[in-house]
Amino acid sequence: MEEIKVFCPATIANVSCGFDVLGLALDSVGDEMVVRKIPEKEIRITKIIGQDLPLETEKNVSGVAGLALLEKSDYEGGFEIEIDKRIKPGSGIGSSAASSAGAVWAMNELLGRPFSKLELVQFAMEGEKLASDVAHADNVAPAIYGGFTLVRSYAPLDIVPIPTPDELFATVIHPQIEIKTSDSRKILKTTISLEKGIKQWGNLGGLVAGLFQNDYDLIGRSLEDHIVEPIRSILIPAFDDIKTNAMDAGALGCGISGSGPSIFALSQGENTAQNVAKSMEETYQTIGVPFDIHISKVNIHGVKKLG
Amino acid sequence: MEEIKVFCPATIANVSCGFDVLGLALDSVGDEMVVRKIPEKEIRITKIIGQDLPLETEKNVSGVAGLALLEKSDYEGGFEIEIDKRIKPGSGIGSSAASSAGAVWAMNELLGRPFSKLELVQFAMEGEKLASDVAHADNVAPAIYGGFTLVRSYAPLDIVPIPTPDELFATVIHPQIEIKTSDSRKILKTTISLEKGIKQWGNLGGLVAGLFQNDYDLIGRSLEDHIVEPIRSILIPAFDDIKTNAMDAGALGCGISGSGPSIFALSQGENTAQNVAKSMEETYQTIGVPFDIHISKVNIHGVKKLG
Repeated sequence: MEEIKVFCPATIANVSCGFDVLGLALDSVGDEMVVRKIPEKEIRITKIIGQDLPLETEKNVSGVAGLALLEKSDYEGGFEIEIDKRIKPGSGIGSSAASSAGAVWAMNELLGRPFSKLELVQFAMEGEKLASDVAHADNVAPAIYGGFTLVRSYAPLDIVPIPTPDELFATVIHPQIEIKTSDSRKILKTTISLEKGIKQWGNLGGLVAGLFQNDYDLIGRSLEDHIVEPIRSILIPAFDDIKTNAMDAGALGCGISGSGPSIFALSQGENTAQNVAKSMEETYQTIGVPFDIHISKVNIHGVKKLG
Repeated sequence: MEEIKVFCPATIANVSCGFDVLGLALDSVGDEMVVRKIPEKEIRITKIIGQDLPLETEKNVSGVAGLALLEKSDYEGGFEIEIDKRIKPGSGIGSSAASSAGAVWAMNELLGRPFSKLELVQFAMEGEKLASDVAHADNVAPAIYGGFTLVRSYAPLDIVPIPTPDELFATVIHPQIEIKTSDSRKILKTTISLEKGIKQWGNLGGLVAGLFQNDYDLIGRSLEDHIVEPIRSILIPAFDDIKTNAMDAGALGCGISGSGPSIFALSQGENTAQNVAKSMEETYQTIGVPFDIHISKVNIHGVKKLG
């Protein structure tokens, strides 16, 4: 195979109770990317449509992730990348992760899969480092593994795939304001109360158990965040209204996607996810906040081949 | 049924990464208790052997737990309790929880099971409140449900039973010193770093996933505690040596049982658990610390009927 076209999923990191450790991949929201082999040992980004992003390899997250892979590979050639960028940077649904993960997943396919998923995550993390100064894995891991993933540890990197119930749908609304991940991290406190910590790990354990058991009620009860949401939600227009209305519309839970400003809700079944979307739309329409909105099944495959 | 004899299991709370939320029940360590119906609407503790504990209903944890049940019951009579107390109070393996849980479980059987397990936990928590001023559930929940349990939330009380892999054995060594739960709580800080919190909920998620998947390696990798163990272990003789030697002997993980001073290790298979026990014994024999030691399969039934 000389060339491959891939779908690079958007992802929701943190997922309420899993700050910095949990993430999930979306099915119908993502970039498309064509990666092809070239004889020269280099990464060339030849085309980006949809967004104004740098073509220089060293300044582009997919370029940097690709270079990390190339460095560990015995392949003598290189790759050319074309990106159809549909996820808006800064939206909080893993825009940089989609590009980083998509690039290295595609390259690995073209080379006959010499690298494990864990290694691909490590390469893609280099792209994340370029994007936000922190080589976090909570978006790239679900982009590569699909479904829900838990980053149990960074040293050593330990990714735990968590099964995804069949009827789990996400609704994501993106108010058209930009919050930089780095700014969004700065407002967090470096300490938390032990009491809130206990609630958080109780909820994370409950969420993981709920996912394993297809227990939607337990999933819903566990989607609480007493630590980050109260602080970061201040930066997001009408967060409390969006959440209250989403829950009233039947969502299992609702929270900040990654570092925001997107807000996600999880629902059992597509109908409920659509009702939740409607409630979110109405909330922002009423107060005049422009937005994008997405409804998607949770994607259990991660990056995938197109065509 | 007018009378029942029950086994009341010892329990390990916290289990390294699950401070205040996780617990597990033991199979071969516990009290025995006889509970019988009496016509008077009262709880009478008629006999306690093995330990010097109060017979007065209001001062005995099983009495207090039993009164909590009686108060919610439409049963016109009461109960008489005899306790063969084999778990030493203050050992850190749920001595008070065994009595509280055993009493209410037995009463519920005698009454034809009018109460759910969750309700039994709530009654037994009244005994815990008497014992340590805090109505915690991390010992009484596994004593009543069996296996591993997660206390996801206290308000409302939400207990999540977690499946237990078949080959999971615990080794518990109890150095003969007393640490009161209340003292052991006092030395904890009321805040933790966000960074350590993230590690903790990553590990708790990993442990729950490992238990669901019978993934002993993942269970082992997740049995870490960066928050409580570094502080509380100071109170326990030679904790670091015990732990190092247990891990060298093949334990999956090793930590403080409840608020100590008992130290537990989990192992895959009974042989490894025995090797771990040997290493622990040798460590305390070398430095002259008197101890009790127990090896037990994880008990998936909780309190059970005897005879």
